[in-house]
Formats: sequence, structure tokens, C-alpha cells
Amino acid sequence: MKVIEKILAAEQDGKTLFSFEFFPPKTAEGVENLFERMDRMVSYNPSFCDITWGAGGSTADVTLDIANRMQNMVCVETMMHLTCTNMPVEKIDHALDNIKGNGIQNVLALRGDPPHGQDKFVQVSGGFACALDLVKHMRAKYGDYFGITVAGYPEAHPDMIKGQAVAPEDYQSDLVYLKKKVDAGADLIVTQLFYDTDIFLKFISDCREVGITCPIVPGIMPINNYKGFLRMTGFCKTKIPSEIMAALEPIKENEEAVKAYGIHLGTEMCKKILAHGIKTLHLYTLNMEKSALGILTSLGLIEESKISRSLPWRPPTNFLRAKEDVRPIFWANRPRSYIARTGGWDQYPRGRWADSANPSYGALTDHQFMRPRSLDKKLQEEWALPVKSIEDINQRFSDYCLGKLSSSPWSDLDSLQPETKMINEPLASINTKGFLTINSQPAVNGDRSDSPVVGWGGPGGYVYQKAYVEFFCSREKLDALVAKCKSAPSLTYMAVNKEGESVSNVGPTQVNAVTWGVFPGKEIIQPTVVDPVSFAVWKDEAFEIWARAWASLFVEGDPSRQLLEQVQSSYFLVSLVDNDYVNSDLFGVFDDI
Amino acid sequence: MKVIEKILAAEQDGKTLFSFEFFPPKTAEGVENLFERMDRMVSYNPSFCDITWGAGGSTADVTLDIANRMQNMVCVETMMHLTCTNMPVEKIDHALDNIKGNGIQNVLALRGDPPHGQDKFVQVSGGFACALDLVKHMRAKYGDYFGITVAGYPEAHPDMIKGQAVAPEDYQSDLVYLKKKVDAGADLIVTQLFYDTDIFLKFISDCREVGITCPIVPGIMPINNYKGFLRMTGFCKTKIPSEIMAALEPIKENEEAVKAYGIHLGTEMCKKILAHGIKTLHLYTLNMEKSALGILTSLGLIEESKISRSLPWRPPTNFLRAKEDVRPIFWANRPRSYIARTGGWDQYPRGRWADSANPSYGALTDHQFMRPRSLDKKLQEEWALPVKSIEDINQRFSDYCLGKLSSSPWSDLDSLQPETKMINEPLASINTKGFLTINSQPAVNGDRSDSPVVGWGGPGGYVYQKAYVEFFCSREKLDALVAKCKSAPSLTYMAVNKEGESVSNVGPTQVNAVTWGVFPGKEIIQPTVVDPVSFAVWKDEAFEIWARAWASLFVEGDPSRQLLEQVQSSYFLVSLVDNDYVNSDLFGVFDDI
Repeated sequence: MKVIEKILAAEQDGKTLFSFEFFPPKTAEGVENLFERMDRMVSYNPSFCDITWGAGGSTADVTLDIANRMQNMVCVETMMHLTCTNMPVEKIDHALDNIKGNGIQNVLALRGDPPHGQDKFVQVSGGFACALDLVKHMRAKYGDYFGITVAGYPEAHPDMIKGQAVAPEDYQSDLVYLKKKVDAGADLIVTQLFYDTDIFLKFISDCREVGITCPIVPGIMPINNYKGFLRMTGFCKTKIPSEIMAALEPIKENEEAVKAYGIHLGTEMCKKILAHGIKTLHLYTLNMEKSALGILTSLGLIEESKISRSLPWRPPTNFLRAKEDVRPIFWANRPRSYIARTGGWDQYPRGRWADSANPSYGALTDHQFMRPRSLDKKLQEEWALPVKSIEDINQRFSDYCLGKLSSSPWSDLDSLQPETKMINEPLASINTKGFLTINSQPAVNGDRSDSPVVGWGGPGGYVYQKAYVEFFCSREKLDALVAKCKSAPSLTYMAVNKEGESVSNVGPTQVNAVTWGVFPGKEIIQPTVVDPVSFAVWKDEAFEIWARAWASLFVEGDPSRQLLEQVQSSYFLVSLVDNDYVNSDLFGVFDDI
Repeated sequence: MKVIEKILAAEQDGKTLFSFEFFPPKTAEGVENLFERMDRMVSYNPSFCDITWGAGGSTADVTLDIANRMQNMVCVETMMHLTCTNMPVEKIDHALDNIKGNGIQNVLALRGDPPHGQDKFVQVSGGFACALDLVKHMRAKYGDYFGITVAGYPEAHPDMIKGQAVAPEDYQSDLVYLKKKVDAGADLIVTQLFYDTDIFLKFISDCREVGITCPIVPGIMPINNYKGFLRMTGFCKTKIPSEIMAALEPIKENEEAVKAYGIHLGTEMCKKILAHGIKTLHLYTLNMEKSALGILTSLGLIEESKISRSLPWRPPTNFLRAKEDVRPIFWANRPRSYIARTGGWDQYPRGRWADSANPSYGALTDHQFMRPRSLDKKLQEEWALPVKSIEDINQRFSDYCLGKLSSSPWSDLDSLQPETKMINEPLASINTKGFLTINSQPAVNGDRSDSPVVGWGGPGGYVYQKAYVEFFCSREKLDALVAKCKSAPSLTYMAVNKEGESVSNVGPTQVNAVTWGVFPGKEIIQPTVVDPVSFAVWKDEAFEIWARAWASLFVEGDPSRQLLEQVQSSYFLVSLVDNDYVNSDLFGVFDDI
């Protein structure tokens, strides 16, 4: 979706929006860390996040990759910066085609800084001289597909500033140039950083004066660090009000004090801006979360305890799958794998589970078993310890449920889902018995949709869940469980081993909604289902994890590895639902086994 | 759906099925009465009902019309009898094409009785000589479309019986002929009536002996009346065990005693048949309900208090709309009008309410305002009384809600819906205030799906309803209501007057599920919705009823008629939903108005 549409809708609803800007880290590990941080920050529902284009195109490929992962894996509406520096038109189009193919609809079009080692911007052969040309090109070649944002300079572009301040005629001609960019097709303006709010407010009215009517979003850069602040404002030729310098002077050696002042200053600036009726804030995070979140918290725009989910899983922003409104529960702890394996699907309509018995999941790839470095490290620490017996294995799973371990080979998330903690004791108990759980949810019988742990969809509705648990177990345990299920009519189960031998009491195309919500004026929303077709696909991945994510932590021939491989080849994967969410007793069936 | 498929599925599930046979009444009033009776009987869930083809084709058109209305209005799986008597092949095909176009898939193929005034069957020019030819023709021309049932004669066809009993070789050749009919494509046998159960059981094993493998359903004719019994058995040359004659002899003048004996006898016969593993029973009702229902009740196959609904509304049997799983609430009291107006729709998929903002409802026709004679009579009695003031009108509506009147111009049903009685006091109260209700449902927060009044969908699930009320009211009352709704965020409303002026707090394509059910192993079922698009269509019909069904009971110029026409042209039709079904207080908003 285009960011401009979000902003216009929010203006009509009188809502305040905010967004975060990031830049491409220099190392692969840095990139992974950024994604973890971004994931946390995105849970506060920014209207979009943007990612800068490396100076001189230096990080072009990294930026493309990050942008695509932001849109499709982090699932945040993504705006990619694109500059003209060192970019002949083929490279420009390659980048645009690439993000278009990945469902990104927002670009911030810039001229860009001079190439590395040069003082002045140089138009590359076959490339563009300025952002205006880039905007024109994008509209000519891509029509209305992209939302195009351009930069606005409240103190004029630094190139226009010759001495201490910009000359009035240069400021005016910069405004005229900005209007040209808008007239050429830009639909949104984000400003350069500033620290004098009055200058920004004057800039707004000057823009309106010359006939610029699109929204203008202030770019706020929290002061994180004294030296960095001086460097950045020097580079951008930003005017710094004397009271800011006066406030910083006595604390400039105290990093924490500078940060705290940065949050205070950012909050005051934003308050003033919001008071003038400008309801969108763009935060230059410099890839750090504390200051940006601190300002938003001070403003009352976010609250840790009130992170609200629109669905039980983070909904996609890629416009190609924007209609996706239902997922099988199986990938709940591996959402990125699910997105990757369903990336080829051309539609996500309502009811696909009823209509399609054969969703074409992508095959398993090595990529499916790659995980963030930090998680990889934790697995090495926690799961590479020898396992000498089945009991050792049971204990490992049980410890994870109790939070004694912080990683699981079957989860890409950095912690247990909050709702899992509601049932961690009974989960740990069945793990000790040899039912090795990898996924679960507690029953919920009509909690308010804004309740902290299980709520989703915003206020005014009621949410429900059927209790669910998914686990590996031996054939003997499975037999005992199946026998007990005969006298528990509310339980439905599907079990399958690595070879595909299966035991089940549900029909081959039966789809069970296990999470749903009832909202005013709407049809019932059913975002999570259990279905046999997806289960058959998931099963390969679930069994493969034994080998690739756990056994592989041991060298070949190691007794631990051999034991894990035995389990992998002999155990069943079982999906068990208690359909009675009103009088739920999912764990009761494990008593006396 | 083909009856044979239902029977085979029931055999697998170990379920017992029953069905009812009717014949075409001679008068139009008789036909209407039959439909009322059939409607009641169908609520007990017979697997199918059949309708005979008049002797000598005498009632061909009536039979076709009744069959089509059975399938599409009563919504029961319908089997139409078709005979060769006086039927050249064009007439046969006309009848088959006609029912095929109306979604009927079941035919009982018969040779038929001799034409009126003749002793022997005569093959009409261009027609068929026997049922076998008819079966062959149907399979040749219509392929697999129809389920074809043929008649089996446990005592051989009456034509084969020359003296007191059939000769063994004639009985045998009748069996061979029956096998030919099956081999030619019949998939089901229903037997001629009999009173000696042993003869029927022997017939079954004789059929199996000659290689007939399809299900054979016993035709049971309860004795209703002594003389009728003698006439029928005489005509069919049916053997009557002497103990039956002995039992009837002393009570033959006492009609009630004969009926009671008929129920007793039928029950005993059926018990014996069921004990032999034959789990389908066909009842010749002779268009009467007591004896057939009496036998089924004695057998424990039906129970008045346990009439179960598969959906809140009776689902269609027409195979063309078999997928229909959602309806707007507006026609709840005029289901036949809804079926008629949506007859042209070519599909009823899940989610049509989400996808289609423009369902092509048929236009209003005079037919839309025709109603069963018995209802017409009640309206004349109860609604043609003069109305002198708005208060008189309010009182009329209020009385209907309290059950003081048994008819309403806005309902085609013969009584208030049972759930309406749960809220009849508050309904009556708002009617007195000038909110003239025509449709409503109480809130239901997770009742068991087999609960008597609001349950549907069979056992094991939970059902829910948002409280709903639909009414006419003056502009002043509407204004007051709208003002009060501002402080009741769980209420959504749509209001429109005859000219189309509208007031609403829901979006133009918003669909609100107001009845839903949660069942083991299934997606959430949402059979009833409130949506603005259907409301706009329904509104014309709802306003038209003021004139055509009520005002028209008075002569032109009559003050009552003038008052009703004023109301029609000035009032609003309002649909009001309380979205909070957990803490519902729909009627609270009417306090102090």
C-alpha cells in the first residue's frame, strides 16, 4: 500500500502516525541485528519504515535485499530510498523492477550525495542529474504503481547554503524546485532533519504559499551522542538553536544524559509540531531503538503494555499478498519460512482453505534452515550439549517450555510466544512424558479483543481459540493417545511419521478454524486454521529440523546425533485440537499415559 | 443430490433413514394445505419425499409444479414419479427437462396404471411400453444426471396375479424383469405396499438371489381407515395376514381405533424390518401426517422436542444452489420470496457477501405477494379491521408479537419463530412506542448447538447470535434513536425510507455476520448476515407489503387505507444490530424514547 494513502486515511480519522528510518549496516551480523531490532520496533505499528540507499550506491544490493526482507519478512510497509549517484538508468530500473516484483510500492527519490571521494555531485553517464529527473522517469516508466516521496529542506538544500545561512533567493528557488518535484509526480514530502521547530513550521507555510499541497512530514533526528550530533548537523549545515548547545555543553561527556536530553528535546519538538496540526512524525533512528521509542512513549503514542496486533500473526504488507487473511497454525514459530514457501502463490483469497486442496507450497531449501546468527549462537550453547537418552531429549523440550532454555530448533522467534506462558506448566509436564511439543496455544473463550496477551484486531470485539498442541512422540505413546481420544469426542488429531504413515480422525480436506474473532459490523475473522493438506507439507519441514537444526550440531557418528536420528525416523508428528474451547481440557487426555 | 447417495452414506454411518410419499391433491386449496403439512413433516428431516404422477398423466402439470415447489420452496430432496401412461416421448422429455432445470435429480420410473376407463395398460403412440424402456431412455438421454428408482413388487406385479396368488414362474419372471430395470440403470428399488413382513423379507433375499444388489426400500402404508385399506389392498391384490383382519374386524367402525391400530401395526412391521438390517423406510402417507409421524415416533426415529435444524434457515436441496451457506436476515420470515428472487443466481459460494457488492436479485413480481390461502384468510380476519390512528397500528404489531394475532402481512410463516418468543415482551413494548417490528432475533452467547430453540448444526458445537431487530418508524423516532446510538458504540444501524433516503453508521459494503456456529473440526459457519446491499433490495419489498398486503384489504379511499398509505410513504425501515452479544442490551436504547 502506498504510504500517502495511509497518511490521507489517518488525516481523515484524526489519527497520529509515526515512521522509522534505518540505514544498511556494514556487516552481515549487523544486518541480522538490525532485523531483530526492527522486528521489535515494528510491533509498535509504525505506518512505514524506510531504508536508505548507501552513499554513492555503495550498498545498493544490501539495500535492495533489506528492503525486500522488510516488506516481506518483517512485514512492515517499506519505503526504499533511491539516489541518482553512480546510477545509470538501467541500474535504476533494475532496482525498481526488483522491489516492484517483491511487492514494495514506496520509494524516496533523491539526487544523492556526491560519489565517494568527491566534493560535488556528478551526473553519471546514462543517469540522472537530479531527483526531479528521477521522479519524472519513475512516473513515465512505472505510471501510478509507486508512491513517490521526495525530500524537503526546511533550511534549503545544503548545496544552496554558501555562508552562514541561505540567501533568501536561494531558499525561494529551492522551494520552486520542490514544487517541480511534486508537480512531476511526488505525492509526499519528508523533510531533512532540523532542530529549530519554527524553521520547519515556516517551511510548511512557505510550501503552501508556492502551491505545494501534499502532506509534509517532519524528519526528527533524536540526539543520541554529542559528537555524532555535531558531525551530522555540520554535514547537513543544520541550524542549532543556542539553547540546545547551552543545554548540551554541561552534559556532553555523559552519554546517558545526552540521550535523555535527546528524548526530552525530541518530545518537545514533536509536541509543538503536533500542536500545529501536523499529525505524522518521521524518526531518523540511526538504527537505534531507545531514543525513537522514548520520544514516542513520552508523547503517549506508544505503550509497551498496549502493543496491539491486527491479527494473531503479523499480516503481510506486500501488496501481492495483502488479502492474506488465514494461515495454518503449523508455521506459527517459523513465520518467515511460511512466507518464503508460499511466496509463489498468486492469491490469498478468503476461503482458499475450503476451495483448494492443493496449495502449491515451495519445496524445502537450505535457506529454510538458516536462522539469525544470534539464534544460531543460542542453539549452539543450549542444544549442542550431549543427549544420552530419550529422557535427556524430553528434558530439553521441557526446559524450553519452562523458559529455562531460550532457543528451540523448531522456532525462529527469539522467545516463547506470550500465550505459551499461560500453559507452560502442563506443556512441560507432557514433554517430560515424551510428548515433545513444538507448537501450542491455550483455549480462549471470548476474551476482549484488546486483552494484552491473546487479543488482536483492536478494541470492541471478542477473540476465541481452540486449545492446540503439536508434538513428536513415539508410536507407543501415539497408540495410547489415540485409544484415549476415543472417549474424548471433542479432540481431533492428525499424526504422521517421516515416511508418511498417518493416523487421523479428521477428513482429508477438513479445515478447522482454531483462532477466530467477532467484531462489530463484520463477518467472523478466522485467521488461523489446522488443515490436513498444509500439515502434510509442514511435516517434511518439521522432521527435517531434527537433522539439520539439531543433530547437525554433533559430528557424524556421535551418539547424540545417532539418538536424534533414531527419534527422527521413528517418531510421529502429531497435531491435536481440543474443539471444546468452552470447557477445554486438552491436557487431560495425557493423564495416565 | 441423488437419494441413492444419501442411502449409501447412511448405510456406512449406520443411520436409519425414512421418507414420505404424497400425491397431488385435486384442488388448489388442497395443494396449499398439502404444502403446509409437508412443511411440518419435512422439519423431521426425511431423507426425501416423493410425489406421485396422476393416474393416466391426469395431473401431470400439477405434479411437475408440486415437485418443483417441494424441491425449491419446501427444500426437501424430491423424487418425482413418472409413468408411461399417455406419455409420448416428447411429453416424457418435457417433464424431465422441466425438473432438471429446477434442480431435481430423482425420478421414480413406472409403467403406470391403465388410462382412465380402461382395464389394461396401453402403449401410447410414440411412448413406452414399460418402466424398463423408460429407464433405458432416461439413461440414454440424460446420462448420469438422474437417480432412477424403480418399483419392486414383493408379491409380483398385480397384472401377474391371475387368481388368489401369483404362480411361482410368474413371480420369478417378475424378479427377472426387476433385475433388467436395475441393469438398465435404476439405482434404487422402492417396494409396493405389503402387510406381510415375511413376504417382503423373502422378496429381498429372492432379489439378492437373482443378482440384484442395489438397496431395496420397503414401502409402508399405515392403515388409516378401514374401507380405504380394503380398497387399496384389493386394487393392489395385497395379501393380508389373517391376524390383521381379525384385529380390525371388531374396531372397523371406530376410525380412531383403526388409526391407532395402524400405527401399532406399522411400528411392529418396521421394527421387524429394521431388525433384519434394512435401515430405510418409505412411508405412503396418503397426504396425512398423523399415522406416518406416529409410527416414526413409536420407533424412536423422531421426537417433537428434538427437531434439529442443520442451519438457522432450511437449506436448499436444489443441486444448483446446494452450496448456498449464507443468507441475509431480511427475508427470514419470507424465505420463499428470497428463494424466488435469487433463483437466477448461478452460484452461492462462500464469501459472496464479501466479494459481490451487487447480487442480482430478481425484480418484485405479483407472485411475491401471493400467500397460502390459510394465511390469506387469517390476514382478512385479523388485519382488515379498521385502523383509526397510529396507536391502532402500533397495537396491531404489538399484538402480533404477543401472539394475540396469528398472522402478519410481513411473514409467510404460520407462526412467530420460536426464538422470537424469547423476546416478545420487549418487542411488544417497543411496538407500542411506534417501532413496528417485522423481524428480530435475540442475542445468543455460545449456546449448545443442539439446544431446542436456537440450536442448529447438530450436536457438539456452539451457536451465537447478535441481537437484531428490524422495524418501521417515523422520522422523529428515527432521529431520537440515532441520537441515542451515539452513546451505544456496539449498535450498528441502517435506515431507509420508501424514496431511498438513508441514514446509516455502517459502510456501504460492510457485511455483518449475525448468526454463526463453531463446530469440531470445521471453519466457523456464518449462515445469516446483515448487509447494506441486500437491505436496499429488501426495502422495496418491505415497503410494498404495506400497500399490497395490508392497505389493499381496505377499499380505495377508506380512511384505514389512507392512514396506512401515509405511514408507508413517510416511515423509515430500520435494521438495528447489537454487536455486543456477550453483554447484550439491544432494547435498552429504546428506553426513554
